[in-house]
Amino acid sequence: MRNKIPRDNLNDYTPEIVKTRQAFLLEQTGVVVEHIKHFSFEPATTSGNIENLTGVAQVPLGFAGPLLVNGEHAKGEFFVPMATTEGTLLASYNRGMRLIHDLGGVTVTVIDDAMQRAPVFGFTGARQANHFSQWIKDNFAAIKACAEATTAHGKLRDIEHYAVSRFLHLRFNFTAGDAAGQNLTGKATWAACKWIQAEYTKIAPIKEFSLSGNMDTDKKASLLNTLHTRGKKVVAEVLITNRSLQRHLHVNTKEFFQSRLRANLGTSMAGSVNNGSHSANAIAAIFIATGQDVANIAESHTALVYSEIVDTDDLYYSITLPSLIVATTGGGTGLSTQKECLQILDCYGTGKVKKFAEIVAATVLCGELSLGAAVVGGYWVDSHEKLGRNRS
Amino acid sequence: MRNKIPRDNLNDYTPEIVKTRQAFLLEQTGVVVEHIKHFSFEPATTSGNIENLTGVAQVPLGFAGPLLVNGEHAKGEFFVPMATTEGTLLASYNRGMRLIHDLGGVTVTVIDDAMQRAPVFGFTGARQANHFSQWIKDNFAAIKACAEATTAHGKLRDIEHYAVSRFLHLRFNFTAGDAAGQNLTGKATWAACKWIQAEYTKIAPIKEFSLSGNMDTDKKASLLNTLHTRGKKVVAEVLITNRSLQRHLHVNTKEFFQSRLRANLGTSMAGSVNNGSHSANAIAAIFIATGQDVANIAESHTALVYSEIVDTDDLYYSITLPSLIVATTGGGTGLSTQKECLQILDCYGTGKVKKFAEIVAATVLCGELSLGAAVVGGYWVDSHEKLGRNRS
Amino acid sequence: MRNKIPRDNLNDYTPEIVKTRQAFLLEQTGVVVEHIKHFSFEPATTSGNIENLTGVAQVPLGFAGPLLVNGEHAKGEFFVPMATTEGTLLASYNRGMRLIHDLGGVTVTVIDDAMQRAPVFGFTGARQANHFSQWIKDNFAAIKACAEATTAHGKLRDIEHYAVSRFLHLRFNFTAGDAAGQNLTGKATWAACKWIQAEYTKIAPIKEFSLSGNMDTDKKASLLNTLHTRGKKVVAEVLITNRSLQRHLHVNTKEFFQSRLRANLGTSMAGSVNNGSHSANAIAAIFIATGQDVANIAESHTALVYSEIVDTDDLYYSITLPSLIVATTGGGTGLSTQKECLQILDCYGTGKVKKFAEIVAATVLCGELSLGAAVVGGYWVDSHEKLGRNRS
Amino acid sequence: MRNKIPRDNLNDYTPEIVKTRQAFLLEQTGVVVEHIKHFSFEPATTSGNIENLTGVAQVPLGFAGPLLVNGEHAKGEFFVPMATTEGTLLASYNRGMRLIHDLGGVTVTVIDDAMQRAPVFGFTGARQANHFSQWIKDNFAAIKACAEATTAHGKLRDIEHYAVSRFLHLRFNFTAGDAAGQNLTGKATWAACKWIQAEYTKIAPIKEFSLSGNMDTDKKASLLNTLHTRGKKVVAEVLITNRSLQRHLHVNTKEFFQSRLRANLGTSMAGSVNNGSHSANAIAAIFIATGQDVANIAESHTALVYSEIVDTDDLYYSITLPSLIVATTGGGTGLSTQKECLQILDCYGTGKVKKFAEIVAATVLCGELSLGAAVVGGYWVDSHEKLGRNRS
Repeated sequence: MRNKIPRDNLNDYTPEIVKTRQAFLLEQTGVVVEHIKHFSFEPATTSGNIENLTGVAQVPLGFAGPLLVNGEHAKGEFFVPMATTEGTLLASYNRGMRLIHDLGGVTVTVIDDAMQRAPVFGFTGARQANHFSQWIKDNFAAIKACAEATTAHGKLRDIEHYAVSRFLHLRFNFTAGDAAGQNLTGKATWAACKWIQAEYTKIAPIKEFSLSGNMDTDKKASLLNTLHTRGKKVVAEVLITNRSLQRHLHVNTKEFFQSRLRANLGTSMAGSVNNGSHSANAIAAIFIATGQDVANIAESHTALVYSEIVDTDDLYYSITLPSLIVATTGGGTGLSTQKECLQILDCYGTGKVKKFAEIVAATVLCGELSLGAAVVGGYWVDSHEKLGRNRS
Repeated sequence: MRNKIPRDNLNDYTPEIVKTRQAFLLEQTGVVVEHIKHFSFEPATTSGNIENLTGVAQVPLGFAGPLLVNGEHAKGEFFVPMATTEGTLLASYNRGMRLIHDLGGVTVTVIDDAMQRAPVFGFTGARQANHFSQWIKDNFAAIKACAEATTAHGKLRDIEHYAVSRFLHLRFNFTAGDAAGQNLTGKATWAACKWIQAEYTKIAPIKEFSLSGNMDTDKKASLLNTLHTRGKKVVAEVLITNRSLQRHLHVNTKEFFQSRLRANLGTSMAGSVNNGSHSANAIAAIFIATGQDVANIAESHTALVYSEIVDTDDLYYSITLPSLIVATTGGGTGLSTQKECLQILDCYGTGKVKKFAEIVAATVLCGELSLGAAVVGGYWVDSHEKLGRNRS
Repeated sequence: MRNKIPRDNLNDYTPEIVKTRQAFLLEQTGVVVEHIKHFSFEPATTSGNIENLTGVAQVPLGFAGPLLVNGEHAKGEFFVPMATTEGTLLASYNRGMRLIHDLGGVTVTVIDDAMQRAPVFGFTGARQANHFSQWIKDNFAAIKACAEATTAHGKLRDIEHYAVSRFLHLRFNFTAGDAAGQNLTGKATWAACKWIQAEYTKIAPIKEFSLSGNMDTDKKASLLNTLHTRGKKVVAEVLITNRSLQRHLHVNTKEFFQSRLRANLGTSMAGSVNNGSHSANAIAAIFIATGQDVANIAESHTALVYSEIVDTDDLYYSITLPSLIVATTGGGTGLSTQKECLQILDCYGTGKVKKFAEIVAATVLCGELSLGAAVVGGYWVDSHEKLGRNRS
Repeated sequence: MRNKIPRDNLNDYTPEIVKTRQAFLLEQTGVVVEHIKHFSFEPATTSGNIENLTGVAQVPLGFAGPLLVNGEHAKGEFFVPMATTEGTLLASYNRGMRLIHDLGGVTVTVIDDAMQRAPVFGFTGARQANHFSQWIKDNFAAIKACAEATTAHGKLRDIEHYAVSRFLHLRFNFTAGDAAGQNLTGKATWAACKWIQAEYTKIAPIKEFSLSGNMDTDKKASLLNTLHTRGKKVVAEVLITNRSLQRHLHVNTKEFFQSRLRANLGTSMAGSVNNGSHSANAIAAIFIATGQDVANIAESHTALVYSEIVDTDDLYYSITLPSLIVATTGGGTGLSTQKECLQILDCYGTGKVKKFAEIVAATVLCGELSLGAAVVGGYWVDSHEKLGRNRS
């Protein structure tokens, strides 16, 4: 039986304890490691980002671009950092960016912004839950004050009500400034709920309470997020001429559009949360590079692609990311390589999060065009054979 | 206007060209970087894993454990590598692992295994599509031979048929050995489709063909994957005594179970692909550490939690991951730190993939218990305050 | 080639023209009919309910009860009219009603009320759609006035906004008094949209408009209806003692509850809009009997069942119908047998619609218990053999 | 307190007892009824179709047509019986049929056929469930023999396996001849499960069993039905010229197509089971008229509309009904008016069910075009004002 990892020093970050942990691993498993010891950051800089720090995962990093963006916040050309181990991924996005550059850039707009915590309250019956629901509406101002007192940047925008059986699920929607906001949202909602419990139980009993009843839906794809946003809702759009599409991606707009119609049918039957191709690839690569919470790929990869033929043979193409969760402060954004990657985009720190969201969405769109064309043009497999690691 | 990244050397991996790219970035953006230059792998080892290699993303790495697993392939204790920037994540999983250890381990079973490529064929009408569907069934043996000729390890298990309008969507299900299998599946299906096109058009015309009609559903969460698996379908189970749950996680089994009932309702209303808490966290951290395709969090985070009270106050708890996509060969598994992390689990190379899948699923279960209890016990926000980076 | 039905008299309702139509059918098809000629209503009374009136569909009608209801509007015992051709259906509901009577009745609460029309507006891009969205919010009062000017009973409660790509989908939520409200909602939304088009195009162009963009979602089951109601959202609840359940339905509460857990898993995997058993049966039978719009079974059959064991072995059981569409005025409610059936429930006319909604939901619950127990108790098939038409 | 309906004579069908029941209702409720007493069928003919027969629901009946169908089973012109209380419904379908007639008819194809019962088996853990799954596969022939021994027309086509947690959900797919098949399927699956329990428990224990685990999904809309059919899967298709569409429905093909694109987006966001307009209307009206199980609107209204512009300005339009449940024998098909309506379609009795399914699907398509055009053309509300009952 193996020894346990000491529990009391999970949060120590001295270089010595890191070495002790590496030695412990060797002792326990007999595996000699070299690379995971090799990092350039000060261990102490990871405090608050990981426990039991033992080393590093080195993920190859490249840049695609220049990506030409016509955002409301991101304007101009960007070299997009992508950390990945999937061959052809970066080349594919880069290819899409060349087309986009030729077309004058991607237009991107952030159209909604909300981060949630969704507590649930239980009562003896539906009527009692209903009464509580009205009380919450009547006391919104006090609840808002209570929640916002816990945070410098979070603002409680509104609360959605979802009654079912003898329960009331509430969905607290916050804006969170440049942070992703899950933590401030949790803390603020917790404070609000403590107040709600104290006040409401003077009037009527609350039988049960949980800070989450799964309607957040934190780290999980859901239609609710698509409808009401989690993080940023971003639309990226471009008008593609037939000439440019053929020159860069070797397919014409009509066959590209036709393939979208088929894919939409497939998506509907499959019950998928995304009728596009592979938004998760761009999101994963950028999230790793820039210190985002990578688990949020779960929510962030949801997408709605809409395209149509206009003026004979131009292709209007758009992708809506309804729940893109990004940050330019907090989380892993201040770590060593992560911060550098954000700086390369001029997206590190406050006042940058919408700019960053626009760049991510623009990148996603480039990859949709590139992969979509590879499928239509019949050269998808060949690209993987040429650039990818042979995995047969 | 910025210069473009040279397209013709995206696949060069000399140390010199990496430096040239770093200099190019500095020149284009004016940002001085230090950390992303700091990696210990030979650039050439990333050939096939990334293009335009410029540096490294350093992700803090820790280990949780020992995780006690009673799998059919993974037996015994494991120290699980987790690369993350989210404070409290690793500590939370570690806490669940202590409970699990006390209970004698997690029982894990891989119950299905399939990787897909889902081409779509279009015809003049539904009858023609229907005729083609029958032809595919009649010619399965030849199609299988054709597909398998392209791959050493891939086997075509079966083909699902989904007819709609004038189209037939096919879903080719392969087993892929120890690779994740998307690439071999794409290549093999492509070869099969080329043969199908050649042969069937001797009989009747095929109007359209795409190698994917979005029913794969590659890098996207979907109900179809839940029903018919993508990657491995794995069940992790444990019987939790009330005493152990209270000792380790400070809640009792009945209130834990009750919170699951509420969460299930919330999940149903939200239209989420996962009625659990945060499988994506474990999956993201392990995937980054071990060189998995991180974008596959999209599919892999789907989960079905089932629990029930047995014998008065014990809690049977299980989580089914219907589409966990993992590999122990190919992809990023052979890279520097990634390979070391797999070796620490004794999961590098051939014959290890189901063992690895079991460890991932067991880890996921530990985190579900830990976070679930923190929500029920009301100490979730406090944990984040204590361990997490202050992000308010 | 057959003759066409004359188009110009589709709305004539004299006894003579009905006979002419019957003769036309005989002439065209050679089929001699007897029963469809046999109706007791004046043809003219169906004006506004059908075109080309030719006869009657006679659907066998029975009553189940007494159903004991503890609603906020329906209080006491009711004999519930059910028009059906499915053997065992009525007997099964009646059986559930006996249990319920023994338990003191079903508690029912109407917790939400809204009927929708969901127009969509298209613009050149997402930013223009976003601008329009803000304008709609700013002009809600005028829009409301404009919509409500067209209707005596409809009130515009609020408008939901769903932006995607270059479109804005709006969901107008009305209360509709005792009517189902689809028509008044359509008319009022149409008037509002005409005003919106006239006013907004003074500021900026609207590229496209449809009165429905499928987010209503009229005559279609959807998660959106579950989240935000269509018609009435009603919860029916009961606390079931083990003794009563065993006496009436021959199963115990724990095995009944356990079967719910299994069914919930099945429902999740199946992607079904209802985790219960057969709400559609009660709804269809009552809707036909009482002149409801039978096609609304599509939305109305959606349900969320929640149950739990309380106090050792009692079973709290509830069903939430989030989108039950009912009326006690308008539509078919005033027709011959339909009006009589509503009168038997004391539910005809104004001020009765919530009472009627409560009775429908209470009936649904009775059938859930009855069929659920038959499945658990293993006597389901036998019941059908005994009471049903042999269809093997 | 009211008297109870006598339980022991629910299945008596003498004219006297019907009168006694009517008198009982009067006595209990004080409501004098006239019309529900007025039916032309012999009460005894409803034995097996209803219990506690007390009278009749008279639903106005009209015919739309001639509907020109190019099916594999239905060929030629049909007058379609529609029983409804919704004004404009029949006129709208009739209008679509005129367009279709002008275009040479609807092409319809039945592409799949299956009726299900989906039992669930529980075990101590996932491995035991997995073992059982293999045993079921190995013993399919015996299971099939056992199931088919109970029925003259039902054939067990295959069994789908859905493993989750410690359970195995099975989905038995039967073909059911001209019956809808729910009852024969239930009976045959029950027999098979009794055999399975007897045989398998010689090898290993089965902890739990239910004849349904909600994966059937009986009387409930679900994605599983869309993927794997429940009842008939039928595709109706037509090629619409711009000239004809303009002449009959006053819109052009391009604006019609464009409205489909917008509606598809709305459907995706709404999480609806149907991206069309109102299939439920045709299905409800025909189901009532022809003695179908009206509750099956729940499953049957699911639809996938696919359209595209071809050759400049023609519109290919199709609707796929993946789970249309119909019968021409059994159920209510042999009742008085119901049988007559089926006879008018030449669809009564054996060998007719696919013909009938084709007619229903063709009718649905006509209504989609008619309503779709009314929405696009902006005359939807006006039609309701003109033909419908004023319900404002």
